[in-house]
Amino acid sequence: MTSGVVDAQAIDLCAVQRQVDAVLESFLAEKVRAAAGRGHPPEVVETVRDFLAAGGKRIRALLCVVGWHASGGHGDVTSAVRVAASLELFVAFALIHDDIMDDSASRRGRPAVHRVMRARLGGGERAERLGAGGALLVGNLALMWAQELLHTAPIESGRQRLVHGLYDAMLEEVMYGQYLDVMGTGRGADDVEAALRIIRYKTATATIERPLQLGAAVAGADDATMEVFTGLGLPLGEAFQLRDDLLDVFGSPDGACAPGLSDLREGKRTVLLALGLQNADLVQRARLDRLVGRADLEERDAAEIRDILFATGAREETERMITSRYEHVLRVLDGAGFPPSADRALRGLAVKATQYTS
Amino acid sequence: MTSGVVDAQAIDLCAVQRQVDAVLESFLAEKVRAAAGRGHPPEVVETVRDFLAAGGKRIRALLCVVGWHASGGHGDVTSAVRVAASLELFVAFALIHDDIMDDSASRRGRPAVHRVMRARLGGGERAERLGAGGALLVGNLALMWAQELLHTAPIESGRQRLVHGLYDAMLEEVMYGQYLDVMGTGRGADDVEAALRIIRYKTATATIERPLQLGAAVAGADDATMEVFTGLGLPLGEAFQLRDDLLDVFGSPDGACAPGLSDLREGKRTVLLALGLQNADLVQRARLDRLVGRADLEERDAAEIRDILFATGAREETERMITSRYEHVLRVLDGAGFPPSADRALRGLAVKATQYTS
Repeated sequence: MTSGVVDAQAIDLCAVQRQVDAVLESFLAEKVRAAAGRGHPPEVVETVRDFLAAGGKRIRALLCVVGWHASGGHGDVTSAVRVAASLELFVAFALIHDDIMDDSASRRGRPAVHRVMRARLGGGERAERLGAGGALLVGNLALMWAQELLHTAPIESGRQRLVHGLYDAMLEEVMYGQYLDVMGTGRGADDVEAALRIIRYKTATATIERPLQLGAAVAGADDATMEVFTGLGLPLGEAFQLRDDLLDVFGSPDGACAPGLSDLREGKRTVLLALGLQNADLVQRARLDRLVGRADLEERDAAEIRDILFATGAREETERMITSRYEHVLRVLDGAGFPPSADRALRGLAVKATQYTS
Repeated sequence: MTSGVVDAQAIDLCAVQRQVDAVLESFLAEKVRAAAGRGHPPEVVETVRDFLAAGGKRIRALLCVVGWHASGGHGDVTSAVRVAASLELFVAFALIHDDIMDDSASRRGRPAVHRVMRARLGGGERAERLGAGGALLVGNLALMWAQELLHTAPIESGRQRLVHGLYDAMLEEVMYGQYLDVMGTGRGADDVEAALRIIRYKTATATIERPLQLGAAVAGADDATMEVFTGLGLPLGEAFQLRDDLLDVFGSPDGACAPGLSDLREGKRTVLLALGLQNADLVQRARLDRLVGRADLEERDAAEIRDILFATGAREETERMITSRYEHVLRVLDGAGFPPSADRALRGLAVKATQYTS
């Protein structure tokens, strides 16, 4: 912590989250009304609303607003909050599409959107295809609404171009990251560098760096601040994803997050898996090759994989990577000279991001 | 034609198309360079570029630029052309996603993008799923690049909000139209009104009205002009789609466009089919119910369907619907009082749209 002194200007992250949620709610309520007026099916907006309501820590939204504060934003925070809300709709889009591509059964403790659509259509092969189509369109609408929130944010006109440019860059980076992920799944799974590159595109920039920079751009930040956020974004984004990968396979030590099978069934090219494959002996490697990526993988197979990832030191090495990145983040913050309230909020978000539990 | 007098200000639609293509080429060439510099896979941009190069009459782009002229746009046409180019990337996005949802084999005479991606991955069930995922992401990037072209068009700042609003409305309308189409395929196929509603959302507004209005908004048009374009958009858009549906099933009389099986196999809820079902006797209806929507439909089945659509008068009634809408368009133009050059260009585009042959 930077200071024991009471900070009258402390940023209330819970209040920020409530503001973001209020923008999303009112925006989507208007979409419900518009859909009713035009004879559009109501379930599209409802699906997006349910998705947002099901959870998510709004980490990107919080970073955006804190980035605005850290860059000297003052007065009316409306624009920053609206851009922050836009980021959450963007995340909804990305996850809905992700779940289609992986054919994931659930997300945030509920059936994935394409599964909901499939059920709505009855079932069978035809419903499977059309349900995926319906979910694809719901995802597209979430992206389009994200852009609409951006377009209608009262950003100072001289700053719009930079905000749009950062936003467009973020979208492109995430798509390329997903593309590498999808088209590369199952190939070169022992390549730690490739796995880190996917994180960098798919998560690091979009989850940390761009949200911070978007808030900063709305506040009219200088280049130096933008660079600090780049310096923060990569290590914190990587740590965030490495933690997420560990949680998916091992769950959380406190049991709040149960270990799962989804990454293992999907054969997701995580750093964790790459390290396991690299450090494995011939027998362990043969088992990993045989088990990881099997759609019918069972819990006892997952237990065997976990044992190998533990025995090879892959789990411990991933933990070390998280720690070293987290410490890097603290050093960057030490040198950044942000206002105490923003500095404290950023440190809190760094903990939240690297201990992410859902 | 409005006038036999030589019009010094005639709009050269071929030149407009070249300008639009030049913007797309230079934008995507920059994307190729950026991808190379960042280690992104080159095939993503190449796929989008190939898709655009494969054809398409750029009808939306042309309407956008003509809408600009018709609304008193003068001087630098750069913004209108850039927005026009954005529309073509949007179309690429919509068609790439459409082909995934329908699992269409080909588009514009080439294999559909998800089939290209599937082939790239070898084959088999896994390649099918991942190929669709890769194509979904390529489509998403086309949409994001469409938005980037919009964001970087040098639109006068006082007009940006309207342009963005029209663009966002267009995207939403198309998605809702596709959603109705996808989630409704196979149900209530004899409902002419439902089929027209799908056209209205999916095609009429996005193909005609919004492109015209976007050009108009860039030029700073008044509300009256916007309303004329709404008046033009619906009949012309409907005629455009009705012609497209006829061409898909029957081909063109001159043989330039061969009759196909795709709409029939897909069970697409066209007005043509709805009319056929409505006018059919019990025997004909049973045959249509049995044949339309079968993925394994063969040419002889298609021939039988065509015979029924002809015998029931569905084909002729669709032709009449096109004619009456085309005449409506001419009446709207008669009363619009556009400059002669724009009026003539609009009449030309009306012919081009309703005789669309690819």
